[in-house]
Amino acid sequence: MMSDARPRAVVLLSGGLDSTTTLAVALAEGYEVYALSVAYGQRHAVELEAAGRIAGALGVSDHAVVHADLARFGGSALTGDTPVPKDRKEPGRGIPVTYVPARNTVLLSLALAWAETLGTGDLFIGVNALDYSGYPDCRPEYIEAFERMANLATKAGVEGSLQITVHAPLIGMTKREIIRRGLELGVDFGLTVSCYDPWPTGEACGRCDACRLRLEGFAEAGLPDPVPYHHGPAEMRR
Amino acid sequence: MMSDARPRAVVLLSGGLDSTTTLAVALAEGYEVYALSVAYGQRHAVELEAAGRIAGALGVSDHAVVHADLARFGGSALTGDTPVPKDRKEPGRGIPVTYVPARNTVLLSLALAWAETLGTGDLFIGVNALDYSGYPDCRPEYIEAFERMANLATKAGVEGSLQITVHAPLIGMTKREIIRRGLELGVDFGLTVSCYDPWPTGEACGRCDACRLRLEGFAEAGLPDPVPYHHGPAEMRR
Repeated sequence: MMSDARPRAVVLLSGGLDSTTTLAVALAEGYEVYALSVAYGQRHAVELEAAGRIAGALGVSDHAVVHADLARFGGSALTGDTPVPKDRKEPGRGIPVTYVPARNTVLLSLALAWAETLGTGDLFIGVNALDYSGYPDCRPEYIEAFERMANLATKAGVEGSLQITVHAPLIGMTKREIIRRGLELGVDFGLTVSCYDPWPTGEACGRCDACRLRLEGFAEAGLPDPVPYHHGPAEMRR
Repeated sequence: MMSDARPRAVVLLSGGLDSTTTLAVALAEGYEVYALSVAYGQRHAVELEAAGRIAGALGVSDHAVVHADLARFGGSALTGDTPVPKDRKEPGRGIPVTYVPARNTVLLSLALAWAETLGTGDLFIGVNALDYSGYPDCRPEYIEAFERMANLATKAGVEGSLQITVHAPLIGMTKREIIRRGLELGVDFGLTVSCYDPWPTGEACGRCDACRLRLEGFAEAGLPDPVPYHHGPAEMRR
């Protein structure tokens, strides 16, 4: 594990477009980054493999992949209980079946554990309240409540040696703005995986909510999405 | 998985004296119990084995053992980084090296994930603010902050269909009171494991903070501790 003079931050990295841009933002803000990916029982290992490639490409000091088997509990399309919905007309409305109960709380808790061990209180998470307004744990009031709890939870917070801060730099941005920001920072979005239900070949489905939001974002940014799509309406293939 | 008409609760069960008493309290209060044990990288599997025996003996509807590898992060004597301290004079003072960064936050987050899937908002945790005042995540203000955060984190909390409540029935009790309460409820403390550093034979060391607090509690209750101790001052062997 390398170390240097920059302040440290733990960045949650799923391997998707948002978390990759968040990692690039943390580096641009001058942090030494410790990237954390959580294997929580996702249907596919594709996104964890992507996270490894991204961590290497962007230059992090350490990349941890930690298991937390939320699939044991069931209750989400993302952990294999029910099919991933396709071709939904209004992906942003309501809480979708791809909601994983308490996921961001589990992810942030693990990030908090690592941060305290590293002697830092800076956590980064790529949540976004606009495109995913259906997820309760992507809203500013949730992030603030987690931060308040975290400052009471930790030795460092209680002793006053560290202030726990949850950075959510994308929380108020549109997908188009996120893509533009990522490109400004030199992110290669060809490394990222957003699809909830990729093909065994690793190609994105083009039809789940995550693919649709991503494709809309690239379309609004006037740019092609560099990742390959296997299936879907012709106008979504670029 | 059996189910019945009682309200459901998720009870965090480490296999120790406190969490076992907490489980007995939840059953006595009329809950159908789903016991959750988290393998977070403890030095020994002894306590997880004890949790399995206790879950069976007390009668839970399901017992889940979920892995969350906090040992990847280091930073605690309980996950193997530094030796477990022995024969400390004042086990209750300061935050000890057996503190696991963000442990209770990770445990409660996983319990929250399961609870939401089960359609309940009732979580039980056997934290105790008196004997373990050194642990920040055992205090009432921490538990309240977690509860507030959890009600903003979950679909059920946001939609108002469930109120998340973190029950900490032992939080204000002394070890002596906890032991008396457990015995009133018929708990067989011979099934429990409290030791931070048990011998390979499974016998308790008698010298770590957890053993010392437990032995003091039994002594104050005027009762023998039914578990075997391998090592330690003669006056601690019963």
